[in-house]
Amino acid sequence: MTPNVAAAKAALSHLDVEEKEANIRASSRDFFWYSPVLKDRLDHVVADFVVRPRTEAEVIEVLKTCYAHDCPVTTRGAGTGNYGQAMPLAGGCVMHLKHMAEVKAVHPGRVIVEPGCLLKDLDMVCRDTGQEIRMFSSTWATATIGGFIAGGSGGVGSCTWGSLRDLGNIIRLRVVTMEEEPRVLDFRGEELARVSHAYGTNGIITEIEIPLAPAYDWVEMFVACDDFMEAAHFAEQLANEDGILIKLATVFEAPAAFEYFQRVKPHVEPATHLIALMVAPHSMDGFLTFLSRRNDARLIYRNDDHDWDREPGSVFEYGWNHTTLRALKVDPSITYLQVRYGFPDHLRLIEEMQQEFSPEVLQHLEVLKENGKVMFAGLSLVKFSSEARLDEIIRRHEEAGAMIFNPHRYTLEEGGRQTVDDRQLAFKREADPKGLLNPGKMIAWDDPDWRYDRMYSYPKLQAAE
Amino acid sequence: MTPNVAAAKAALSHLDVEEKEANIRASSRDFFWYSPVLKDRLDHVVADFVVRPRTEAEVIEVLKTCYAHDCPVTTRGAGTGNYGQAMPLAGGCVMHLKHMAEVKAVHPGRVIVEPGCLLKDLDMVCRDTGQEIRMFSSTWATATIGGFIAGGSGGVGSCTWGSLRDLGNIIRLRVVTMEEEPRVLDFRGEELARVSHAYGTNGIITEIEIPLAPAYDWVEMFVACDDFMEAAHFAEQLANEDGILIKLATVFEAPAAFEYFQRVKPHVEPATHLIALMVAPHSMDGFLTFLSRRNDARLIYRNDDHDWDREPGSVFEYGWNHTTLRALKVDPSITYLQVRYGFPDHLRLIEEMQQEFSPEVLQHLEVLKENGKVMFAGLSLVKFSSEARLDEIIRRHEEAGAMIFNPHRYTLEEGGRQTVDDRQLAFKREADPKGLLNPGKMIAWDDPDWRYDRMYSYPKLQAAE
Ligand SMILES: Cc1cc2nc3c(=O)[nH]c(=O)nc-3n(C[C@H](O)[C@H](O)[C@H](O)COP(=O)(O)OP(=O)(O)OC[C@H]3O[C@@H](n4cnc5c(N)ncnc54)[C@H](O)[C@@H]3O)c2cc1C
Ligand SMILES: Cc1cc2nc3c(=O)[nH]c(=O)nc-3n(C[C@H](O)[C@H](O)[C@H](O)COP(=O)(O)OP(=O)(O)OC[C@H]3O[C@@H](n4cnc5c(N)ncnc54)[C@H](O)[C@@H]3O)c2cc1C
Repeated sequence: MTPNVAAAKAALSHLDVEEKEANIRASSRDFFWYSPVLKDRLDHVVADFVVRPRTEAEVIEVLKTCYAHDCPVTTRGAGTGNYGQAMPLAGGCVMHLKHMAEVKAVHPGRVIVEPGCLLKDLDMVCRDTGQEIRMFSSTWATATIGGFIAGGSGGVGSCTWGSLRDLGNIIRLRVVTMEEEPRVLDFRGEELARVSHAYGTNGIITEIEIPLAPAYDWVEMFVACDDFMEAAHFAEQLANEDGILIKLATVFEAPAAFEYFQRVKPHVEPATHLIALMVAPHSMDGFLTFLSRRNDARLIYRNDDHDWDREPGSVFEYGWNHTTLRALKVDPSITYLQVRYGFPDHLRLIEEMQQEFSPEVLQHLEVLKENGKVMFAGLSLVKFSSEARLDEIIRRHEEAGAMIFNPHRYTLEEGGRQTVDDRQLAFKREADPKGLLNPGKMIAWDDPDWRYDRMYSYPKLQAAE
Repeated sequence: MTPNVAAAKAALSHLDVEEKEANIRASSRDFFWYSPVLKDRLDHVVADFVVRPRTEAEVIEVLKTCYAHDCPVTTRGAGTGNYGQAMPLAGGCVMHLKHMAEVKAVHPGRVIVEPGCLLKDLDMVCRDTGQEIRMFSSTWATATIGGFIAGGSGGVGSCTWGSLRDLGNIIRLRVVTMEEEPRVLDFRGEELARVSHAYGTNGIITEIEIPLAPAYDWVEMFVACDDFMEAAHFAEQLANEDGILIKLATVFEAPAAFEYFQRVKPHVEPATHLIALMVAPHSMDGFLTFLSRRNDARLIYRNDDHDWDREPGSVFEYGWNHTTLRALKVDPSITYLQVRYGFPDHLRLIEEMQQEFSPEVLQHLEVLKENGKVMFAGLSLVKFSSEARLDEIIRRHEEAGAMIFNPHRYTLEEGGRQTVDDRQLAFKREADPKGLLNPGKMIAWDDPDWRYDRMYSYPKLQAAE
């Protein structure tokens, strides 16, 4: 520990500071190991100390103190991010927000909550008013709302409501800056883009106001198809039924269901393509009518009426990034890609990529609304052989017109559209003049002339011992 | 009154039967006079008697008795239909359902209600549970839910939920047949299409189960634009914002707002194109951000914050068919057309028609979801000169690719796609073997070989005196 960091730690010792080495190590890691590329580079990363503020005032104190001592601060929700977002690349302080978990107010259509509240706990409180959050990461049971907004993009519910970045999906964020005298700012409208999905590089979110949707006892289902493209069409057409309210529509190319979903395996063949669905109970009549029009699809499971010996659990925990998790558990050589199959070419692109790469790459598709259209996010399962081959697969997708959000990179830019977000950068200049917030995650800050011709490597990354 | 009709009336005299001539006449009319074409043909139509059952058992009694006496039965909700749907072309009995107005049960996401309940009253009861109906006719204050389902198509809310005919927008209909022994049938799924939007020609709906949406204090607004196509784009793009929840997005070509909307007039110019909106309160931040990105649109009114001397009332009572009503009140020579501007050609078609026909035809556009896409229903205001010219305008729309649902016809087929609905016809054979239900409204029943080369004229239409 350098003297300045030690001084910061000492100055904060009256707060809840973690002392155990093992716990500090655990609080310094996230799901970066999903990626063989990141695992290779970040496995040794560890914070010097971990502090857990209980209030916004304590957050301000941490930021002010660390500013004074030039100590880096990397904020942590629950550490379920999977690009190393929450990892303290330059060491220093991890500020863990688990204590700041209060749901402050639930109104019709919106909720005000502290960042450390688990998505699950937030929904539980909203449920008392017949409401729930519009969308959530499939890590609903373990992730925080602050981490979702600062590090996530969308998830279960995005088939109806679009992504977190879409206008209207975040109402207000309260943000603390890291300056000599930290400021507390309330952001709405255009200002939201400064700090949402900014990995906590330019301010710490201490209060969140987001819209709510009505809560329903969603009917969770699995539908089986013998043809992959028919499964994709099924999900797409269902999502286009304006009168049928859905929360999830996921397609898994065979043999993913058979190979990776233990509890589904007894009910499918290796060749079965699977669709996971969440449908509002009052839309079930409409859904069953839709289903009965197709002889290419069979309902094999619904959570409210089935004869499966062993319950499969929540179907959304098969979708989004949980698919990769399940595959990884069975086959550690699996990794994944994030693909945008945009309207109106989505189905054509999917077919093209599937034909070119299956089974090396298995399609896993999530229905997503973008600009009012149904399209797909692909979280393709990739049998990893080498970084070079992974790059080659990415290149082919991009050539075909399927944009890639590379999950094997720890910077904002490389995981996004490979361009600087000027609003985030400009706000970082204002809010984090010393560049102490989550260092190494914003290339534009460290190296404005970076050309994206290879993987960015943060120069101040802790050296592996 | 023919002896058989008199006998039916006598046999039903223990029920609530209307005796006053003026009331019988009033209960025999709807808003057919919207159309100069229908006004010309149906003005004299009147029932022989009006009966108002209080229960399903009384509905059964009316149908059974009229069946025995070969007496036609035309069902009436509130008579706000505007194609003469509820008019007893062959006289006989008008069965008025105003007494059957009970809301039987409100569950999360759905409601069970009797057909004679006013849309307004239904919403009032649902509101106690924080819910409201997904969509309603702009005649919300006066029309019944039964009439909406049997005679309407969609309306306020269809910009989000699509049309009544879309899967999931009706859950269940309970229907009484007109046979020697009337049957009571519960229809779901594919069966719903038999009787919904069938004008009561093949069964009487006695109970309705429909889905609900969350109720909000919708913010009602008017936005002004100087350019017509920019107004259309504004409405389209807003409706494509997945995170902004709307209930209405209507565009009125100038000078409709100035000429026909008395209370709006002081706030606009003759050249102002107007947009009427209903936005969820928790989406207002997102909406205002959207608005601020455009310098072509000005917010001139919001119902929760304005300085208008005279309140304009509900903005939805400017939209859908209320636009025509307002125009008609100022200029009796106005009538209208119903146009489908389908995705993806909607904006191009609108521009084409506007350029060809303005100001003889003024564009009035309603955002509508169809098959998951934002498109427009046009309820164009037409300066009526002659039937021949109206037909010519219709022909030009159809040539260009803008489908017309002709509101100047009283039959199901001519108001629709000019084809027989086989499901409705097949069910009529079963449920109304004598053809006594709302006679003259289903061409396929009366004249299966009809070629649609001119306006259908029901041979047994009452003669004008
Ligand atoms: C199995 C699995 C499934 C997943 N599914 C999804 C999915 O469906 N959708 C999705 O979007 N993501 C998904 N993810 C990624 C991740 O789980 C989510 O984004 C999650 O919401 C992150 O929450 P967290 O509390 O774990 O955040 P963390 O991982 O702790 O933090 C995420 C980022 O936000 C920053 N941060 C956290 N709190 C704050 C704050 N208050 N102020 C400023 N910055 C802050 C952190 O520094 C970090 O950069 C998945 C990951 C896994 C492992
Ligand atoms: C100003 C104005 C605005 C309008 N706006 C809209 C709009 O936005 N959207 C829209 O869809 N329509 C609209 N309409 C048309 C009409 O008002 C609506 O369709 C309305 O919902 C009809 O309800 P009602 O109770 O008046 O039905 P009625 O006019 O009484 O009946 C309509 C049809 O349904 C039949 N019917 C009624 N009850 C039953 C039953 N229980 N069983 C079987 N058949 C039955 C009748 O025989 C008739 O054929 C509008 C009309 C006007 C005049």
